[in-house]
Amino acid sequence: MRATREPAPPSEPVTGQVTGPVAARGALMRAEIDEQPLVLSRLLDEGRTAIGSVAAAVRSRRPRFALLAGRGTSDHAALYAKYLLEVRLGLPCGLVSPSTLTGYGARPDLAGVLWIVVSQSGGSPDLVDSTAAARACGAITVAVTNAPGSPLGRAAEFGVDVLAGPELAVAATKSYTAQLLALYLLVDALAGGDGELARPLPVTVAEALERADEVWACAQRYRFVERLVVTGRGYSYPSAREGALKIMETSYLSAHAFSAADLLHGPLAMIDTDRPVIAVAAEGVGAAALDPVLTRLHERDADVLLIADERVLARWGGGRSTVELALPAVAEEVAPVVQAVPLQLLALTMSLARGHDPDTPRGLAKVTRTF
Amino acid sequence: MRATREPAPPSEPVTGQVTGPVAARGALMRAEIDEQPLVLSRLLDEGRTAIGSVAAAVRSRRPRFALLAGRGTSDHAALYAKYLLEVRLGLPCGLVSPSTLTGYGARPDLAGVLWIVVSQSGGSPDLVDSTAAARACGAITVAVTNAPGSPLGRAAEFGVDVLAGPELAVAATKSYTAQLLALYLLVDALAGGDGELARPLPVTVAEALERADEVWACAQRYRFVERLVVTGRGYSYPSAREGALKIMETSYLSAHAFSAADLLHGPLAMIDTDRPVIAVAAEGVGAAALDPVLTRLHERDADVLLIADERVLARWGGGRSTVELALPAVAEEVAPVVQAVPLQLLALTMSLARGHDPDTPRGLAKVTRTF
Repeated sequence: MRATREPAPPSEPVTGQVTGPVAARGALMRAEIDEQPLVLSRLLDEGRTAIGSVAAAVRSRRPRFALLAGRGTSDHAALYAKYLLEVRLGLPCGLVSPSTLTGYGARPDLAGVLWIVVSQSGGSPDLVDSTAAARACGAITVAVTNAPGSPLGRAAEFGVDVLAGPELAVAATKSYTAQLLALYLLVDALAGGDGELARPLPVTVAEALERADEVWACAQRYRFVERLVVTGRGYSYPSAREGALKIMETSYLSAHAFSAADLLHGPLAMIDTDRPVIAVAAEGVGAAALDPVLTRLHERDADVLLIADERVLARWGGGRSTVELALPAVAEEVAPVVQAVPLQLLALTMSLARGHDPDTPRGLAKVTRTF
Repeated sequence: MRATREPAPPSEPVTGQVTGPVAARGALMRAEIDEQPLVLSRLLDEGRTAIGSVAAAVRSRRPRFALLAGRGTSDHAALYAKYLLEVRLGLPCGLVSPSTLTGYGARPDLAGVLWIVVSQSGGSPDLVDSTAAARACGAITVAVTNAPGSPLGRAAEFGVDVLAGPELAVAATKSYTAQLLALYLLVDALAGGDGELARPLPVTVAEALERADEVWACAQRYRFVERLVVTGRGYSYPSAREGALKIMETSYLSAHAFSAADLLHGPLAMIDTDRPVIAVAAEGVGAAALDPVLTRLHERDADVLLIADERVLARWGGGRSTVELALPAVAEEVAPVVQAVPLQLLALTMSLARGHDPDTPRGLAKVTRTF
């Protein structure tokens, strides 16, 4: 499927499309998506020791609870860490509503509380202020940023640098997967692990990038869609949230994310044949929990794009979706790093197919300042 | 504004529209919306003592952390309670991802953790199972339900009955405001209060119901809208979430809720003149935090319906919205109970205006069973 006047599929090198001073639309975002195997390798090679030191210091303080804070894309990385902390460490967790500290002035007793704040830029005042307040209230504060010298990096007691390098596209891509990997390494180190499951990620992500043509075909199918729903469960739920945000940012359509469980509590009513569903499944608990939801969607004749571990697709053998996109096999705990790739590429290519420039989304700046 | 073939506005008595065995569309939902002053009075008069006893028992166990669980509408009541617990009690809080306990089998140490689960029916297996697991892990478990003899009521150590009476419409209305009030009374009692701010609620909610004609006019404006965004901040954010869900359930359009802070991190890009915004503001921190977001929306020529405390609207004096809907003055902490009313009426009348029957949303059952 290839129309003469459609934008070139993203598998063609974008650098070849630069004409004069104006780069090809989406060139920045595409370059940063493609950089991810390198970024993940660097973090595994150069970042792991520092993360291990932070983990050792945090462990010695014996945290009993964890609070996580982030906005936008970083909030989805925080949500991923919440699953990890609960499942791997058995640590009860909460996602922070920063306004209770900054707006309402709450001063909770946070002794024994691990406060993890995630931010690409480390610049948003509400995160800086709430982290400073949490530290003053006794929390063990860790800032996971792509800017260790940022105000947020300075506000927290401990810092984790995700080493993603400068990110120029407004839509965060490589900084997101680097946040996921850094959080995995941090939680795994807290649990006494050595990051083993993460080692294949640079190769697996590179394999996922090689399937960009298939994603481009999916984007063509969504050329005229106005509303879609993204869903997943367990570790894959943050992927659904992030995929929906990326599509909204770059393509301006309504992309609604629901945990597959919440989808059955109300939103299912709005699914019809004109509102496609993107479902994300990792091998393991997430796929098992998604299965009955796919059945319900099938009963409603929903148009479902299923992005799943190739082992899940092989076992299910079709019938649960309209279109499938296979991802290389990877452990469920680290699957969100790989799942991010097709969703980033989908956001990029949908934006291009619809005539937008994903590098300059209307109304957005790279660093968002909220108070 | 009144077209000859439009459904009658909801201020006309629905009982007069019953013809033969088939009741008027939306009659069940409307009757339960109208019942709310009575339900709130009953809870204040008959439920407060029992809630006080639960609070006393919980206080004696000195919880250090709170976890809240709920699905769909009840999740929004849980989110409201999270703000209350953080601001009023200084208790760090988290919203539970039930799948970490039920799917992934996590068994965290929950000694000293207050576990509050909210459910209308008390029947969803994942909430029952995760509550039983939390209790086995040492949590102080409280079930806030409209069905004290339900499996969930039996799984938890303590129960709070919201006394809303049988709810027949699929879209939860009176059970939601009763959950909000029960949670307010519980947290206020934990903080040593006597529920004073809640006393005016039956009268204030009745006043809000008297403004149904204005809501009907708003619903007409949204007759052909396909996508809208609902936003609020602080205590009003759960109201935005619940309003969006109610509209999705009954009118099948994409209604996207964002905290006003998160709206600036990405989703702002998808706001255009065809995508109206409903903004909800209580007098206090919520309105102050929303103000700069309204400015950003105004810069983008967004169509904004501002549902706000009449004192906020008087002070702001227009210019921040396209249409305003004034709510009777009420303390910010309990404002969500009043804010629910125009959003319920909007969902009901939008559904009627679009030719649907809000009492029988497609694809939904009253009790949703998720695992």
